[in-house]
Formats: sequence, structure tokens, C-alpha cells
Amino acid sequence: MDKTFGALKPHLDRIMALKAAMTLFEWDNETLAPPKAARLTSNVIGALSGEYFQAVDDEKVRELVKACQEDPGLSEAEKAQVRELSREQEKLACIPRDEYQAFARLTAESARIWQEAKEQDDFAQFAPTLEKVIDYQERFAAYRAKDGQKRYDVMLDDYEPGFTMELLDQFFAVIKQEVVPLLKAVVDSKVQIRDDFLAGDFSDAQQEKIGRFLAEYVGFDFSRGVMATSAHPFTTNLHNRDVRITTHYNDNLDSSLFSVIHETGHAVYELGIRDDLTQTLVGEGASMGMHEAQSRFFENIIGRNKSFWVPIYEKVQAAFPQTLTHIRLDQFVDAVNKVEPGLIRTEADELTYSLHVLIRYELEKELIEGQLKVSELAKAWADKYEAYLGIRPQSDREGVLQDIHWSQGSFGYFPSYALGSAFGAQLYAHMKKEMDVEGLLEEGRIDKIRAYLREHIHQYGKLKDSRKLLKDTTGEDFDPQYYVRYLREKFEELYHL
Amino acid sequence: MDKTFGALKPHLDRIMALKAAMTLFEWDNETLAPPKAARLTSNVIGALSGEYFQAVDDEKVRELVKACQEDPGLSEAEKAQVRELSREQEKLACIPRDEYQAFARLTAESARIWQEAKEQDDFAQFAPTLEKVIDYQERFAAYRAKDGQKRYDVMLDDYEPGFTMELLDQFFAVIKQEVVPLLKAVVDSKVQIRDDFLAGDFSDAQQEKIGRFLAEYVGFDFSRGVMATSAHPFTTNLHNRDVRITTHYNDNLDSSLFSVIHETGHAVYELGIRDDLTQTLVGEGASMGMHEAQSRFFENIIGRNKSFWVPIYEKVQAAFPQTLTHIRLDQFVDAVNKVEPGLIRTEADELTYSLHVLIRYELEKELIEGQLKVSELAKAWADKYEAYLGIRPQSDREGVLQDIHWSQGSFGYFPSYALGSAFGAQLYAHMKKEMDVEGLLEEGRIDKIRAYLREHIHQYGKLKDSRKLLKDTTGEDFDPQYYVRYLREKFEELYHL
Repeated sequence: MDKTFGALKPHLDRIMALKAAMTLFEWDNETLAPPKAARLTSNVIGALSGEYFQAVDDEKVRELVKACQEDPGLSEAEKAQVRELSREQEKLACIPRDEYQAFARLTAESARIWQEAKEQDDFAQFAPTLEKVIDYQERFAAYRAKDGQKRYDVMLDDYEPGFTMELLDQFFAVIKQEVVPLLKAVVDSKVQIRDDFLAGDFSDAQQEKIGRFLAEYVGFDFSRGVMATSAHPFTTNLHNRDVRITTHYNDNLDSSLFSVIHETGHAVYELGIRDDLTQTLVGEGASMGMHEAQSRFFENIIGRNKSFWVPIYEKVQAAFPQTLTHIRLDQFVDAVNKVEPGLIRTEADELTYSLHVLIRYELEKELIEGQLKVSELAKAWADKYEAYLGIRPQSDREGVLQDIHWSQGSFGYFPSYALGSAFGAQLYAHMKKEMDVEGLLEEGRIDKIRAYLREHIHQYGKLKDSRKLLKDTTGEDFDPQYYVRYLREKFEELYHL
Repeated sequence: MDKTFGALKPHLDRIMALKAAMTLFEWDNETLAPPKAARLTSNVIGALSGEYFQAVDDEKVRELVKACQEDPGLSEAEKAQVRELSREQEKLACIPRDEYQAFARLTAESARIWQEAKEQDDFAQFAPTLEKVIDYQERFAAYRAKDGQKRYDVMLDDYEPGFTMELLDQFFAVIKQEVVPLLKAVVDSKVQIRDDFLAGDFSDAQQEKIGRFLAEYVGFDFSRGVMATSAHPFTTNLHNRDVRITTHYNDNLDSSLFSVIHETGHAVYELGIRDDLTQTLVGEGASMGMHEAQSRFFENIIGRNKSFWVPIYEKVQAAFPQTLTHIRLDQFVDAVNKVEPGLIRTEADELTYSLHVLIRYELEKELIEGQLKVSELAKAWADKYEAYLGIRPQSDREGVLQDIHWSQGSFGYFPSYALGSAFGAQLYAHMKKEMDVEGLLEEGRIDKIRAYLREHIHQYGKLKDSRKLLKDTTGEDFDPQYYVRYLREKFEELYHL
């Protein structure tokens, strides 16, 4: 270890330990903690996050970071850790502590207010709070903006370094131009796909059994991970020997099966990070988008591919005999790929998903850049759904109130979902040049696919950003055409266009 | 809030948050964490405990504590918190940091070595490590000893403030004098109690169902608590809105039912602590012994009482119809009270339990005070079992290697188990003067019993020590005669002596 870095190391260990503690409390809150614990436990989390900020935003630590930056002897991994810490310090240093804490209190409150407004289907209840959240976010972004940087660009940088509004405008322009007409053609097509059998009264025990099987089949390692249930599925990790996924069981087999595959995609990423990077500031996925690239790659490109199901469909049939015995493999695969414009993003099919994200991108950009007022948001939301998806929400609950993200101040997060799908398609196009992906799937050799991703993406953690990972893997910068081409080929075939 | 105390408060909050984080990791390790997580997670726990020690053993905090001690304006609860923090500071200040950390590393290692030695049934493998642990413990006790205080007295004070060797010698002398002959009479009696039906192949699902029922029946509040499984049952808590118990399922119905009642006893204590004390250094049970007093009171005095089962025995029968349908209530109650000298403490009946503890007390006192060598320990252990219980272990696994405590350096802990039983009996004798306990049990009014304990014991947390709690509740100092009398009456009747 470099000597200068050695002096910083104990501080990094403190910071990582405090982060891990907050992660564990978050996991515990979502999966296990008793209903009445929240208020008192939030005192603990508040105190830990105070400790964290103090550990990062410390004069001594700043000096050590500076010394590291001037020391040419650091290894690549050490440099990357210093870069991440410095980035975190810059961010915190720009924001007055009292405003930061006031915002933390506001978001603790705002999730509850959003939840209640959603339950009561009344956006007006939530609007004043959302205005306050946006106000803080705009202020923080203004504090942090460099050289005339736009506020929304500052926010985007938190989730997807390297992707500015300029780049995203191009990306979403392609989506709009290609996916909207493709969807129209699909909706107008005469092909009828049956998927009634995917809804039913499935036992939790059977869903859990097949969920565990699928997770392991895709690559989840139960000696280094845990699966639990929560209201909304998510993945979290303490380090590369402790990666956790959640799932939920419901009356929609599709949702239960594919959410496990999706979260396993996230988990496989975290499990694949190099041992010398885990438990450091660069020991996690490169970005939100690259994470979604892994989860959506496994969920959609792999998981909704017929070849994936060839070796295991009989097992799934056997788990749900009443439902699937008389459903052929190709009927099952068609059903899980059926396109149907809907109002809810988290229930969207592979084709319409990017349009849900497009709508949020356009709206939040306008909100942050001052072209749209909160009071106009619900109508703007409905108008865009009508324009892009051909359906109009009849309630706030199914419209502007459906996602938690904005209540938490997470502006700039949504684009990552669509970027992830596009990254995945670009990786897939390149992967197919190097290996017979469908042949491997039919032989049950998902390990080969995981090994490819591990070699090119997973192992590096945050050593490279998403554009660099794409470049090094595929030889090209990010190119949304791969995604559009993938969607077109797949759905033109499915809907005989 | 007192102003001087107000300045200390943020430091107390930090300390409590770090404690809570360590508690959650401990819970998670025992109940959920994946098998391969331990090594990397121990880095996190190590860093958090480093943070904790730094937060306690801090010059600024010391000054604030001193200011509080000199300020007459503090409330009783504030004074108690300052007292606890000062006690923790004194303890840490006496021990050189490097020795403390070396000991922490040793005990992390020693649990594994103990485990392996136990699996291989070979005390010699563990003995050198135990010698090192004892050496550290003796040194630490010597650093901390005041005015010629004996080393074992220093250790006892960590678990049961106010109980010195002098007092415990008297207590265990009474146990030895009374329980050893009582046990002999029981063993020689002609009464045969049938308990074969308590062993069998019980489904985990049924055990869990009845376990949850019993926990709730005794007073566990599932809106403020969680029940999980672990290798060894335990109770932990984050605060009085989040108290957690574990259980285990096996082929012994007795063990499964009564371990839930036992842990619920601990949980009811923590759930009953006053809101203004929870999340403070005095917001937990007064001592190990007073905690065991609650758990053993519910497990044995209440739980093995026929009246307890009157309202619920049919439900238990219905849960295990093959086993219990033809077993009458009185047969069931006799069976769960059957006395049978055995080698394993955790499986001991109510009468022999105190003898298991007596043996450990005598041995650890001699070890620490230099009258016994580690090399002589296994034989001394076996000799005492033969003398007090009439049976001799034929293996180290069933003898000196059975408990984890010594491997962790927890000398002075064992006496609390027996003290707890004795505290419980003293409380019971007094409670019976104030209410018709058995009548209440037959009516299913355990809430009245809980309310009594809450009023006199639970609510205070660590505001009073165990002797003061006994004094204030029963009007008398600790008196072991209550315990001996309780055992004598109960087992003389059961065995027609």
C-alpha cells in the first residue's frame, strides 16, 4: 500500500463501516423491522448519517486526500478511492450543513406525505411538499454547479457520470422517434397473444421455491447472499460476500418470476466485484445505469428469451401444474413478452418501459429547469401518457403519484432505467459476436455469460465509469441504435410486422 | 433538559447509535447473514467498535461528564446516564488501547478455536487459547481493581453490580447445602414421571405457530418486535419499540415451548422500559441477573405452573394431536417439571439448573484467583459433576467444552443465571401476597402479572440496580431462602417427599 494512502485508509474504513451500518438498517427496515420501530430507529439512522458526514467532511481527511492526489505512487484502485472520496467531499462542502439537515428531515417526512397522498389519490396534498423538495434540490445543484453547468446536469451526474442533458436529449429523441411508432404498429397488429394463465392464485411457498431455483440458476450464490421479501423488490450489499435480494409474491406469475431474475442481475454484478475493491468506495456497481444494464439484461434479454427457458421450463411447469401443464414453451415465452400499454411503470413490458422513462425524463428536466410548475405537473403527466402510450390516467395514483423517487429528491435517477436497457442491448450485440449466446442458454451454460460480464464489467466496480466500460468492452462509445434495433427485431417478429 | 447535560447529549446519541448498529449486526449474523459473510463483516464490526470506544473515551466527553457530575440540576434519569457513561469511561481508560484491541482479536479467534475443539471433543486444543484469554482478563481486572479489590470481584461487577464474591459465596453455600440433598431425595424417590411423549418428530411449522401464540400470550408485542430462528435462542433490542427474540425448533417439544417463553420473559422486560429511558445508556435491563429473573420467572415459575396451562392446554394439544391428544393436563405439567440430572446446562431442569451454575462459579473463581490451572480444569469439572449431580461426563464436549462463555472472556457471567432464578422466586413470594397469581393464570390474565413487574421492575431500566429493585419491590434485601423454599415446596410435592 502506498504510504500516503495508508494514512487515509483508517478514515476510509470508518466511512465504509458507517455506510455499511446504514445499509443494514435500510435492509432491515424494508424486510423485517416491526411496524412500530420506525420513529425511534430513524434517530439511530440520523445519528449514523451525521457520523458519516462528519467522517467525510473533515479537515484532516481533506488534507490527506490532497496529499494522495499529489502523490504519484498510488495504485489505480487507490487513486479511484481518493477520487470518489474527493467527489463526496466536494458535494458536501458546497451545501451548508443546516440546509442539508433540514432537507434530510424534509425527505424523511415527504415519503410519508407522498404515501398518504397516493393512498388518498390526491396530488394536491403532496404538491406543496414536492415544491419544497424541488426548491432544495435546485438550490443544492446551484451550489454545486461548476462553470455555468445547468442544474439538471449536476443532478444527472450523481447517478450517471458522463451523461449530460445533451447526450440524454439525443438518446431520448431516438427512443421517441423509434419506439413510439413501433408501439403503435404493435398495438394495431392483428396478433393476439394469450397471457391469461399468468394471473392466478399462486402459493407463496411455490413462488418462493421457484424463485430460489431461478436465482441460483441465473447465478445467485446463497453462500454469499440472502433472499427475503419486501413490498418492492430491491438488491443491496454489504460487500462481495454478502449480497441481498428481495422479492414479492403476488397473483401475477410473470411479476414474481421476472423480478427475481432482475434482482439476481443486480446481485451478480455485486458478487462479481474484485476482492481488492470490495469494502472500498469503488467496490460497487459503476453507476445506476450500468446496474440496470445488468438487471435488465438478465430479466429481458436473457430471461424473456426462449432459449433461456428450454432447459428449465419443465421444472417451472411442474411447480405450477394447474396453470402451466397445458401451456407449451412457445406460448409461455410469447406471453411473457406480450406488449400492452399500461399506466404503471413497474408493471410495464419491455417495449413500453422506455416510454414511461421518457415521460419522466421530459417532465423532471422541465421542472428543474423552470419550464414546468408543480401545479401543472399532473396534467402534463396525463398529456404525455396520452401522446406516447395512447392511454390517459384517470387518477393521480395511477399517474403522477405512482413513483416514490421525486418525494426523495431523486431527480436525475429515472434516465438510468432506460439507459440501462440500452447499455444492455449494446453489450448483448457485442457478446453475440464472441459467443453463441442462445446456444449456451439452451445448454444451461449461463455461467459463460456471467463470466463474460464479470470479465468486462463486474470486476471493475467503480474503477471505470459506464461510458468507459462500454468503450472497453464493445470498442464503441454509447450508441442507442443497438437498443432500438434490438427492440425492433424482437417485436417485429413477435407481432409479425 | 438540564443545560450541562444538553451539551453531553449529542455525544450520548452518537454512542447509542453506534451501539445500536453493533447490535443489529450481531442480530443479523446470528439469524440471517450468509455463511461466507463473516470475515468481511467482522471488518465492519471492528471499525464500528473502534468508533464506539473513541466516542466514549474522548477528552471532550470526559470534561462534559465531569461538568454534569458537578451540576446539581440534573434529573434522576440524566444522572443515571452520566453515571453509566462515566463507568464505561473508567473501564476503558484503565486498559491500554493496544491490549484491548489485541484482546478483541483474540476473542474473535477464540470462539472459532473453542467451536473446533468442541466438535473434535478435545479440550487440549482449546486450553492454550483459554490460558491467553484468562491472562488478559486477569490483567484487565488488575488494571481496574480499586483499593485491593479482588480480580474476580471486578469481573462480577460487570454483570451484577452490588454482588461480590462474599455475597455469592453465601448464596451458593445455601444452594449447595439445600439443593444437593434435595436432588438426592428426588433421585431416590419412587415416583416415576412419564415424559416420553415430549420427544418426537415435530414439524417446524407447527412449532413456529405455537411458539408465536405462546410469545403473544405471555406478552410479546409483534407490532414492536420480531421473532426469528438461530442456533441458540437469544433476545436483543434496539429500543422499546424494537425487541427481538429467536427460537429454535427441534425434536424436543419441551425445549421449543419453554425457550420461547424464556425469551419472551426477556423481551417483556425490554418492552416495558420507560419511553424517556429507551435509547439511552440506562434504557435496558438493570443487570444480567435481573434479566434472567424475568426470563426464568416466566419460563419456570409461571410457565411450568399448572395454572398457566389451564386456559391454553387444549390449543397446544390441538397443535400436536398425535402427541398430546391422550395426555392429560396434569401429565403434561408433571412431564415438563421432571427432574433428571444431566450433563448439559442448557437442557437442565429447574432443580438441577442451579447446580450447573454452582459448578461454573466455583471453577471460574478458582481459575481467576489462581487456585486452579487450566490444565486441571477438565478433571475438576468432571469431579464436581460427580459430586453435585451424581454423574460424570465421559467427554470434553459434554463437559468443560459445552459453554461458549469462557472463550469470550465472560468470567463472572454465570452466577447471574442462578441469581436470576433466586431473584424471581423472591419477587414471586412477594407478588403472591398482593395478588392471586394462580387464579389470574387460570383466567388467562397474565397482563396483571406483567403490569406488576412493569410497575416494580421493568420501567426503571438501569435507574436502579438489582438489589435496589428487590428492596423497593419486596421490602427486603436479596434473600436466597425464597428460592430454596420455592424449590423445596415444588419438588417435595411433585416427588411425594
